[in-house]
Amino acid sequence: MGGDHGPSVVVPGAALALERKPDSSFTFFGDEKQIAPLLAARPALKAASTIVHTDVSVRMDDKPSQALRSGRKTSSMWLAIDAVKEGTADVTISAGNTGALMLMSTLNLKTLAGVERPALAAIWPTSRGESVVLDMGATIGADARQLVDFAVMGGAMAKIVFDLDRPTVGLLNVGVEEMKGIEEVKNAAAILREHEGDLVYHGFVEGDDIGKGTVDVVVVEGFTGNIALKTAEGTARQIGRFLGDAMRSSWRTKIGYLFAKPAFDALRARMDPNNSNGAVFLGVNGVVIKSHGGTNADGFASAVEVGYDMVRYDLLAKISAGLKDYDRSNTPAVGAASS
Amino acid sequence: MGGDHGPSVVVPGAALALERKPDSSFTFFGDEKQIAPLLAARPALKAASTIVHTDVSVRMDDKPSQALRSGRKTSSMWLAIDAVKEGTADVTISAGNTGALMLMSTLNLKTLAGVERPALAAIWPTSRGESVVLDMGATIGADARQLVDFAVMGGAMAKIVFDLDRPTVGLLNVGVEEMKGIEEVKNAAAILREHEGDLVYHGFVEGDDIGKGTVDVVVVEGFTGNIALKTAEGTARQIGRFLGDAMRSSWRTKIGYLFAKPAFDALRARMDPNNSNGAVFLGVNGVVIKSHGGTNADGFASAVEVGYDMVRYDLLAKISAGLKDYDRSNTPAVGAASS
Repeated sequence: MGGDHGPSVVVPGAALALERKPDSSFTFFGDEKQIAPLLAARPALKAASTIVHTDVSVRMDDKPSQALRSGRKTSSMWLAIDAVKEGTADVTISAGNTGALMLMSTLNLKTLAGVERPALAAIWPTSRGESVVLDMGATIGADARQLVDFAVMGGAMAKIVFDLDRPTVGLLNVGVEEMKGIEEVKNAAAILREHEGDLVYHGFVEGDDIGKGTVDVVVVEGFTGNIALKTAEGTARQIGRFLGDAMRSSWRTKIGYLFAKPAFDALRARMDPNNSNGAVFLGVNGVVIKSHGGTNADGFASAVEVGYDMVRYDLLAKISAGLKDYDRSNTPAVGAASS
Repeated sequence: MGGDHGPSVVVPGAALALERKPDSSFTFFGDEKQIAPLLAARPALKAASTIVHTDVSVRMDDKPSQALRSGRKTSSMWLAIDAVKEGTADVTISAGNTGALMLMSTLNLKTLAGVERPALAAIWPTSRGESVVLDMGATIGADARQLVDFAVMGGAMAKIVFDLDRPTVGLLNVGVEEMKGIEEVKNAAAILREHEGDLVYHGFVEGDDIGKGTVDVVVVEGFTGNIALKTAEGTARQIGRFLGDAMRSSWRTKIGYLFAKPAFDALRARMDPNNSNGAVFLGVNGVVIKSHGGTNADGFASAVEVGYDMVRYDLLAKISAGLKDYDRSNTPAVGAASS
């Protein structure tokens, strides 16, 4: 029921996802009156789907605490998360209220053993391809240990999304020199440098390294991460507006636009947030995917595919293994303390 | 001596600035052997200039503490700042090492009365025009009172740069709702809301509001501000690369590019960081301007002009008045505490 368009995007998106991953099946939580006709028009999807009717749905502008008060155990969002908890679904995907989704997921699924704070990880288009960037605002502030957890969780996600054995990880900072930045980030760096796991610790990265694709995983606490993401989105829209204004400025540039249209289409596709849609809510005991609220059916299908892969390639086991691996590597060898 | 190009950009930049502001005069601190021939080729500038020769200059990759050890009282940067302290110059402008410039300025000029921490304020191109955004990384972390100081100082700068009586101010946050964000930001909001000065407090703004130009002054602590700035710069470069790739992809798009070239030139000019060059180091007892290291002569001239205006329209007095004004408005009226 969430997002700007509700079932009119979610159902066609699921239909596309089913074409791409034919062994999927779907449960739709929400208003049956809206969902059933959309399914009736898509027989293949209908055959792979069930509907769980709810009267309650979380609104996009509800505060998370409001959503919880009015929607706990009754809303489409809560019940979709509950299906993951009960094992009747492998993954829940929502285009709805981000704050409510994170709060309900955390309360209902609980955090994974060893994880203090969950993180929202986005797939960020870069000059080299894509990177995983987290935390996009699930929690505000993070100590060194929590940043290391983010590195491990983002690394597990990157292994799956980019099919890598040893993803590179960078800590977002105000400079690349060792003495720069806030204590938490410097301490996280000290831990990651010593860690002999399956992450390749690159070092500090700066804001412009995100777009360059310098590392596979960029780690930052949620306040700064959220602002960086929205600043980048804002800059992209701003340039788009400037470009549009410039192209409409004379007959000559209008003709140029017509000739160069394939290039603009390619640029649009490359910058299209629908292509990188599907943020993963990492650190809870279940797979929860957040789709952009304004996405289209194609974008929603991308988010479903991200969820499919996270389940197929066992995100949760990869995170747990990474955390254990990491814990072991920090236990001093026997006798080391006395040597 | 600073920046990527040293005197070969600084001297021609000063010549351009002199054309625009003929009542300026210049003192060049640095290697006379490099500076003198450049001045000799520009008689008008030479007539308005003196050279103070130094053997020492701060390198771009020096750590600030290194630069201080090797350049205190001897380097071109230190002496240029010293000229402002001694009153032989009204403003110092450097394209050099940012960290060293901030450290030397703070140590030599000291902070203004009532200011705990200085801030680096950039002029950020937006869809509406330009905004002042601070802190870009002068200091890491800021408490509520320091954020309010940033608002007052950024407001004073915005009054001059944008010729406004009452600039609008927003606090950068992860959402616009009152209960969102970190304590320092929420507490700064509480103070600014009550403040009846010549700032119009808009409320919280998000990352994408910077590019929209929602407010004249965007306030954020230096860690997040630095990362937001570099992320935006990185995004702009990334889109530029994508656009270039797309335009070179076929004969058709190449023809389109030729037709639309005036539009691309206009876009380039609109996004050109040289046009918004000249960050102001606010909160020290003197006017210090940081030019981009990679700027050209035109960009350096813009930085000089920013400095000229800051002096002409009395930045320091405006900051001090703003701080006092603000202090008064926070003093409870007589009897208020007992009512």
